[in-house]
Amino acid sequence: MELVDRMLAGDQIALAKLMTIVENRSTDVAAIMKQVYPRTGRAYKIGITGPPGAGKSTIVDRLTALLRAEGCTVGIVAVDPTSPFSGGALLGDRIRMQQHYLDRGVFIRSMGTRGSHGGLARATKDVIRLLDAFGKDYILVETVGVGQTELDIMSASDTVVVVIVPESGDAIQAMKAGLMEIADVFVVNKADRGGAERVKAELETMLRMSPPRKLSWEPPVILAEAERGNGIQEIYEAINRHRRELEASSKLREQRQEQEKTELIEIIEELIHERLTARASSDGLLAKYVVRVQRGELDPYTAANEILSSEKVLSELVAR
Amino acid sequence: MELVDRMLAGDQIALAKLMTIVENRSTDVAAIMKQVYPRTGRAYKIGITGPPGAGKSTIVDRLTALLRAEGCTVGIVAVDPTSPFSGGALLGDRIRMQQHYLDRGVFIRSMGTRGSHGGLARATKDVIRLLDAFGKDYILVETVGVGQTELDIMSASDTVVVVIVPESGDAIQAMKAGLMEIADVFVVNKADRGGAERVKAELETMLRMSPPRKLSWEPPVILAEAERGNGIQEIYEAINRHRRELEASSKLREQRQEQEKTELIEIIEELIHERLTARASSDGLLAKYVVRVQRGELDPYTAANEILSSEKVLSELVAR
Repeated sequence: MELVDRMLAGDQIALAKLMTIVENRSTDVAAIMKQVYPRTGRAYKIGITGPPGAGKSTIVDRLTALLRAEGCTVGIVAVDPTSPFSGGALLGDRIRMQQHYLDRGVFIRSMGTRGSHGGLARATKDVIRLLDAFGKDYILVETVGVGQTELDIMSASDTVVVVIVPESGDAIQAMKAGLMEIADVFVVNKADRGGAERVKAELETMLRMSPPRKLSWEPPVILAEAERGNGIQEIYEAINRHRRELEASSKLREQRQEQEKTELIEIIEELIHERLTARASSDGLLAKYVVRVQRGELDPYTAANEILSSEKVLSELVAR
Repeated sequence: MELVDRMLAGDQIALAKLMTIVENRSTDVAAIMKQVYPRTGRAYKIGITGPPGAGKSTIVDRLTALLRAEGCTVGIVAVDPTSPFSGGALLGDRIRMQQHYLDRGVFIRSMGTRGSHGGLARATKDVIRLLDAFGKDYILVETVGVGQTELDIMSASDTVVVVIVPESGDAIQAMKAGLMEIADVFVVNKADRGGAERVKAELETMLRMSPPRKLSWEPPVILAEAERGNGIQEIYEAINRHRRELEASSKLREQRQEQEKTELIEIIEELIHERLTARASSDGLLAKYVVRVQRGELDPYTAANEILSSEKVLSELVAR
């Protein structure tokens, strides 16, 4: 595909167009990703997540400046599944990043719910792959909130940074949200507010109580005031230590293989969803089951089990 | 199943236990729902959504009091996919509902992300069915935020109430979030704040510009101050008008049939997900594809297409 060739040759406009195609889940996605795929795997992916208002965008902004100063190129993907209501804030944050907009070494993409038709996590992972193939050294993926979509997206990162603020109870909430399991680096941002040391101590206690990790890696807890640039160097160093540990063990490869497996399953499921939706309204066997459920002759759980036990219905799904 | 028998006989503790089983997506879900299913379809389901802080919980609270005064029983399902970080607020709101906690005619259930393993929308729909089978006249389903999960859940309602506040731009955001398409009743809450009339006018203009609906129904825009009880009666009447219009036409039946179809597809997909995940790590054909993708011999899109074109791989999925 010519657009992919232009993107791989460094054309930013082609990159942006491909992202839009991928976000809309057009039928061209498979062909694009097939061509892009062999060029991926080089970028290092950093996920940054946490509750709204924790200062994630500022950290992304400062980390980008630091990475650029080191001579690295950066791709930024800002995902807000709850946009557009919170999207205003995210866009506002992005304005602070204007310095980077003028820098050809940085490519920024915001993604929201609209247009992705429920496939936001899937679309985001493809956008990350596009940036990877484009040749970015680092890809920073920022998500707002801690729902399932955000956890899915974080699972595609090499290092996950969880940012919280010293609000009372936030450490506990982070644990309840499942962030203990996914965080490789913790940041207590806005540490000039009271209680930062206490939240840090709470996090460290909870991390000690967590089940042991596969690596010997113990997630550090870093105090930061990203707005003033404090703590950014420490965050960067923690990410690099984690990266070295992943690379020294076989863990980076294993982790990425796990991601490949998950992605394959997701893509199969996306295709199955399209076919099920189409077949359910046509005149085949699946549609007959739909009618029986609608008439109350069969409950949907029994119907689903029968459908999945039937080679005939499955052949119907295979036939395009 | 004895627990289902007890629930159908009016045992609230059995109901709560069944909800927990359903929320955890245990293997018993199919058996439970099969038994429950024939008893469903009687309750009227009202979805209430909108951005955080719009006062949805207060509206649910006041609407519940009104429905109780009319002699109707009420089930309340409060869903917060972004809990636990925002869950505190939701719980706080629930405290105001304590009066209803003591009322056996009201059953309240909060649902968050944890424990539902990505199947929050699915679990919520089953919880709604449980309340329906339990015999509640009305089921109020409140969601926080406007992500895909929330839109999915709202699609299971008979009447959808969208609540916004007179903040500048919120009408536009509601449109961008896709709320114009799903709202049957609009509420501009906290109407004592400035700008309520302007937001109402904006919404009405946008509704006129929207594509025509299947019904002749035009979503009303109601100004409310739920905290003081103002506008609740009007909301209730608008819901009832919408209900009568749905019932008078064949639209309620069609809408519910569409919901049945969607549910059947979701349940099939949930089963397929479980099987794919299990097979991907076993030693069959699917696992071989996973290895080829992990080795970089094949991109996942090509692999997914080959898998779905292969009767052999599909027979593997049929075999349990």
